[in-house]
Amino acid sequence: MIKLFRKIDEFKEYRRSLGQTSIGLVPTMGNLHSGHLSLIEESSKYNEVTIVTIFVNPLQFGPNEDFDKYPRTLEQDLQSIDSLSIEKDILVLAPESASEIYPNGFSTTISISGLTEKLCGSSRPGHFDGVTTVVYQLFNITKPSIAYFGQKDFQQQLIIKKMVRDLELPLQIQTMPIIRDESGLAKSSRNQYLSDSQRTEALELSKKISTIRELLQESSFIDSQISINSILEETLRDERWDYLEVLDSNNLQSISPTTNEAVILGALKVGETRLIDNQVVKIIYAR
Amino acid sequence: MIKLFRKIDEFKEYRRSLGQTSIGLVPTMGNLHSGHLSLIEESSKYNEVTIVTIFVNPLQFGPNEDFDKYPRTLEQDLQSIDSLSIEKDILVLAPESASEIYPNGFSTTISISGLTEKLCGSSRPGHFDGVTTVVYQLFNITKPSIAYFGQKDFQQQLIIKKMVRDLELPLQIQTMPIIRDESGLAKSSRNQYLSDSQRTEALELSKKISTIRELLQESSFIDSQISINSILEETLRDERWDYLEVLDSNNLQSISPTTNEAVILGALKVGETRLIDNQVVKIIYAR
Repeated sequence: MIKLFRKIDEFKEYRRSLGQTSIGLVPTMGNLHSGHLSLIEESSKYNEVTIVTIFVNPLQFGPNEDFDKYPRTLEQDLQSIDSLSIEKDILVLAPESASEIYPNGFSTTISISGLTEKLCGSSRPGHFDGVTTVVYQLFNITKPSIAYFGQKDFQQQLIIKKMVRDLELPLQIQTMPIIRDESGLAKSSRNQYLSDSQRTEALELSKKISTIRELLQESSFIDSQISINSILEETLRDERWDYLEVLDSNNLQSISPTTNEAVILGALKVGETRLIDNQVVKIIYAR
Repeated sequence: MIKLFRKIDEFKEYRRSLGQTSIGLVPTMGNLHSGHLSLIEESSKYNEVTIVTIFVNPLQFGPNEDFDKYPRTLEQDLQSIDSLSIEKDILVLAPESASEIYPNGFSTTISISGLTEKLCGSSRPGHFDGVTTVVYQLFNITKPSIAYFGQKDFQQQLIIKKMVRDLELPLQIQTMPIIRDESGLAKSSRNQYLSDSQRTEALELSKKISTIRELLQESSFIDSQISINSILEETLRDERWDYLEVLDSNNLQSISPTTNEAVILGALKVGETRLIDNQVVKIIYAR
């Protein structure tokens, strides 16, 4: 059964009535696609109750970003959840205004240093402070046993795991694989901004990442570094690329011969739309 | 009975064994004086167990401040607590190193905007981020029902109350009056840096604040503003004064004819030692 809440107070009252049940949280900004739906399905497989939050968080958008334009499609989102035909309870918390999440003069910011400055953090200053602050609030309101995040926002899930560890928040974080369409394009609410020809252009992102993944899997450390560096250098000469990097998946530091798992992360601007993607790869260097 | 803990893990294990008892927290940086002791007495009056933390928090000191020099006097502090002859349990948590409070790569900061930029925040950039972050950690480790702060750090207790409200931390904050010596000097661990002549010089701080308090209590709004402004202007020409301000005690905004309670706050440098003091005053303007 799906229950919709637009008021935090009403939600909290209901939440209290649930007591200690196992609760999975899927925090979203709405405009749900099959990536989000896979998180909801996973959560409802393992938890009595799943909470889906739908909140376009102003704090994580920069002044020149797409906050106003970001698609708000609550009716359609509820239908998408309904179409999953999940038998357990799904609570949808879609606050009717930002002041529900940030009440009267809310002025606290939670920041993580180290992981937040690079990649998306460098082109979107303040973005991750907005993310950690809203996620803290959502955790506090929903009190889940476990929260599900998509691997597509790789840096984001790592930052949230760090916050949970540092602040000893009483829940687990589960990261779920990227869902792609048939062409390989990672599902994103921003894909709908793309024209047909831009969709084709966007494939460059996943393809370049795959090329690098193969190099990491098939060459020795030295060989892979040489080939990869030349790919990165050439690619980043193209201004549409915001970043393309190969890093240790545990801490986003540079990789070394002792790195066990790497992550290849890219951000590509296609027209006005900035898309991100990544692939994680266990590496056992060929000798 | 006093129990001393130097390791967070051992403390946490003991804390778990206490379960839901009512617990009062008195967070300190040690070098306890009668101001701190009044908080400990108050806590033990109303709680089964009182936790006193003693931790000189590196995060709240600026690069040119007195972190290294700050007095560390654990033996003496334990004796001071013992001399209170409190019959209930007192747990003293004095972590043996900063990594007990900030374990392996801790990199989260909690910041409050609005209240933190002025007064002490303006001459000590980053200070209050260090305060809120350590206080969050101490709350998380000790899980008190109530925490006691001194009014001497007026801005600090207001910021902490804001953090508790914003982040919905499950405890109460109680602010206790300033303790002064016979001369009127507010008790502070930093007083011991003062020579005898500096102690006399330091009295200027409480005296100036008292003068302004009397004006607020005895004159109409307009009259008090005129007299106070001329005092502030004259006083602040003297470079030893870091600030001297009259603000609304609820939010540190400017006062107006509708302000119910004002706070007069001052910071004065005596030699190398920066001292702070304040007085809160209910105001019913004479007509």
